[in-house]
Amino acid sequence: MLDSPAPRKRKGEQALASGMGWAQTFIAVDWGTTNRRAWRIEDGQVAQEFEDGRGVLSIDKADFPAAVAEIRQRLGDHPMLMAGMIGSNRGWVEAPYAPCPAGLDDIASVLAWAEQDRTAIIPGLSSAEPPDVMRGEEVQIFGAVDAGLIPADALVCHPGTHNKWVTLGRGKVTRFRTVMTGEMFSLLQKHSILSDLLKDEMAVDDAFRDGVRRGLEGDAVTAELFSVRAGVLLGKQRREDATDYTSGLLIGADIGSSIADHIGEVFVMGRPELTKLYAAALGVAGQKAREIDGETAFLAGIKAIAGQI
Amino acid sequence: MLDSPAPRKRKGEQALASGMGWAQTFIAVDWGTTNRRAWRIEDGQVAQEFEDGRGVLSIDKADFPAAVAEIRQRLGDHPMLMAGMIGSNRGWVEAPYAPCPAGLDDIASVLAWAEQDRTAIIPGLSSAEPPDVMRGEEVQIFGAVDAGLIPADALVCHPGTHNKWVTLGRGKVTRFRTVMTGEMFSLLQKHSILSDLLKDEMAVDDAFRDGVRRGLEGDAVTAELFSVRAGVLLGKQRREDATDYTSGLLIGADIGSSIADHIGEVFVMGRPELTKLYAAALGVAGQKAREIDGETAFLAGIKAIAGQI
Repeated sequence: MLDSPAPRKRKGEQALASGMGWAQTFIAVDWGTTNRRAWRIEDGQVAQEFEDGRGVLSIDKADFPAAVAEIRQRLGDHPMLMAGMIGSNRGWVEAPYAPCPAGLDDIASVLAWAEQDRTAIIPGLSSAEPPDVMRGEEVQIFGAVDAGLIPADALVCHPGTHNKWVTLGRGKVTRFRTVMTGEMFSLLQKHSILSDLLKDEMAVDDAFRDGVRRGLEGDAVTAELFSVRAGVLLGKQRREDATDYTSGLLIGADIGSSIADHIGEVFVMGRPELTKLYAAALGVAGQKAREIDGETAFLAGIKAIAGQI
Repeated sequence: MLDSPAPRKRKGEQALASGMGWAQTFIAVDWGTTNRRAWRIEDGQVAQEFEDGRGVLSIDKADFPAAVAEIRQRLGDHPMLMAGMIGSNRGWVEAPYAPCPAGLDDIASVLAWAEQDRTAIIPGLSSAEPPDVMRGEEVQIFGAVDAGLIPADALVCHPGTHNKWVTLGRGKVTRFRTVMTGEMFSLLQKHSILSDLLKDEMAVDDAFRDGVRRGLEGDAVTAELFSVRAGVLLGKQRREDATDYTSGLLIGADIGSSIADHIGEVFVMGRPELTKLYAAALGVAGQKAREIDGETAFLAGIKAIAGQI
């Protein structure tokens, strides 16, 4: 096996071949579109970590080996297990998509080995109808199930650049749908006619809840958005409310279109500053929400996968 | 009156005061966000014209006098009548909004004089509920009524960066609504995760019509958009269809949200490459559409307003 140039190896084989002690010390990396985060895990505990803005879109294809080496310079020369957009066609080495329904074992068994015995990328998930893909969130979701943070049958909302609505059955992701809510807000904030109105910090306030209610009504968001600018120009909306109202509008439209008829708790997982907004918006929509810290879930998931190498 | 520093003058007064012969020769300018277009009108006919990319967002506030002088260098030293975003708070001199209902006489009587006796800006329109504003389209619409291109009672669709749905009653705009469809497509094309899929020319084909149908169904566009990327990644959608499908999706959502229950012809006014798309999409939605050339309508409108100075 050690002579084989095959980039992927099956569960179990790698541990026997390398003997590099993944169970004791390894580096976990969550490498997304716009930033990356890395942890050195020793005996199941975080020993050192960092986060920076070197997302995959900021790195040329040829520079990934150097960007990976830099992580080892900072956290030590250990085996590395990575998840997220680093495994996409815009990343370093393309990892496959595990088709739904898929659970933790299904992704742990088809790692893409970027550097033999040393560096592996966890595959993403794909859903057939409507066509959809994810990379990174699956590690958090399976980690949360594994750690008992969420039940094996659950609806998960994972806000981020691309919000994911994920249905779990018996611990497997059975289907999911991506909504570009975070990216849309970012596009409007950075590049649109509304950009000078969307510079405030996002908060849960009356303007946010008004936006959520309007978004839930289901009219085209593209129509409602312009009224934010017109409302300020005509003195009918306060400029300082525009950020919160717009954020609420997009999140309300997202929720209204995705789970209007859901019954039961929604587990909102990810960065606390985003789960807070979605949990509040779900409350406005009459849904019960529980927030799950994405970092805790990610570490639980990647440790469980490392334990299978 | 000539000693007055007041920037605005009433209908009739200016013609008596200046005697500059607006009825014989003047320069008409349609100055938008991203480009500008100018015509020298002699005895009601276009004698010379040009178009360039010097929209208001590309010009610093202090440089507008020079940018205006440049138009006169190219088309001659004549009185100038301008419409569009040049009169906005991002333009040169802020022109008021005439509140709806408003007709051609209502905007012709409250011009903003940027240079006394020489250079005037036509006001925009405002609508109270929901709050909305327009600048530039009103000249085309009133021009089309004045020239008999559309009836005095009509529904007008005016696609552009910001699509306007305009209800006309007895020749006046009674209400209107702006949908950011064009800007949204441009944001997606230039800055989003979909950008490398949206580089083709837009055309009316099966992919466009599929997108329109999906958009008309009324689900959140932010959810449907990601499936364009996922569909291509998973080999379920052809890469070369992505531009047309996405364009159709946004236009379908726009139409579905704006005039789902309209009965009667829709007059689609503006640039032919855009009116073509909307007319086709309206057809998919079961609506009857007639295209009106925006330039013809603009020139009819601005000549009618110049005739009142």
